[in-house]
Amino acid sequence: MKMVIAIVQDKDSPKLQQNLVNAGVRATKLASTGGFLHAGNTTFLIGTNSDRVHEVLELIRTSCRSREQVVTPMSPMGSQVESYVPYPVSVQVGGATVFVLDVEQFEQF
Amino acid sequence: MKMVIAIVQDKDSPKLQQNLVNAGVRATKLASTGGFLHAGNTTFLIGTNSDRVHEVLELIRTSCRSREQVVTPMSPMGSQVESYVPYPVSVQVGGATVFVLDVEQFEQF
Amino acid sequence: MKMVIAIVQDKDSPKLQQNLVNAGVRATKLASTGGFLHAGNTTFLIGTNSDRVHEVLELIRTSCRSREQVVTPMSPMGSQVESYVPYPVSVQVGGATVFVLDVEQFEQF
Ligand code: NI
Ligand code: NI
Ligand code: NI
Repeated sequence: MKMVIAIVQDKDSPKLQQNLVNAGVRATKLASTGGFLHAGNTTFLIGTNSDRVHEVLELIRTSCRSREQVVTPMSPMGSQVESYVPYPVSVQVGGATVFVLDVEQFEQF
Repeated sequence: MKMVIAIVQDKDSPKLQQNLVNAGVRATKLASTGGFLHAGNTTFLIGTNSDRVHEVLELIRTSCRSREQVVTPMSPMGSQVESYVPYPVSVQVGGATVFVLDVEQFEQF
Repeated sequence: MKMVIAIVQDKDSPKLQQNLVNAGVRATKLASTGGFLHAGNTTFLIGTNSDRVHEVLELIRTSCRSREQVVTPMSPMGSQVESYVPYPVSVQVGGATVFVLDVEQFEQF
């Protein structure tokens, strides 16, 4: 048995959760903030048999991998909009930090 | 030293916390949601000497074990109560998912 | 790779976070309550190379170590203030409970 601890951005959290459910992998989510990734992240505790660790890591990677996203910044509140021309910019989003720990004993009551 | 990670239903959380305090077992609680058990669960991080792991697992089991509970469903808001006869039903409540991990080093400052 | 789990008082949390950032040590914070320390604590998950564990423990110790603090208790709301003479008292604050766990695998996506 292994414990996979994955810290992912909030925006990727629902997709990862759905993909884990679809694969029959059990997880619990902890509210977390800052540090590994920018503000607004979620920590998943995932218990899995040792032989499914690679599959779980693939689920995390495909759900959360770091990628470019084109966004159009909002005009700041109270600015003179006629002097401000918003244009699309590319930003980095997503990404996951993942730790795999050994579980010595696993019980369900 | 071992780290026991226990995910329990919110309704069992105060009882488990009290039983851990009574046994002199130190724990911290993390807010958590969904997955291992239905929505509304609490994750306990419990640090314990290796020779007390069995005792801690017994505390968790007796505080949180899955059991039948008879509930009488509430009449839904806004329904015509005269056409709705509530009757007691048996539901499954409780249960705990528990991981035991080895602690390589333990410090208190 | 090691996972350092540190439970510290909320009041020491910003200082520890700043010191970790300054040292280039990555961490995420989990909301937590009670148990190891009195109500209002924060759990840090810190991923670090094995050869920096001692340094990380020193950062936690210097940021959070248990110490005496002189406080002047507030006059309770609604009390007759003329019959109540506040005087400074020394209380114990801070402290950290720290677990070091081995990480079998570490990934960043
Ligand atoms: Ni195992
Ligand atoms: Ni040990
Ligand atoms: Ni290692």
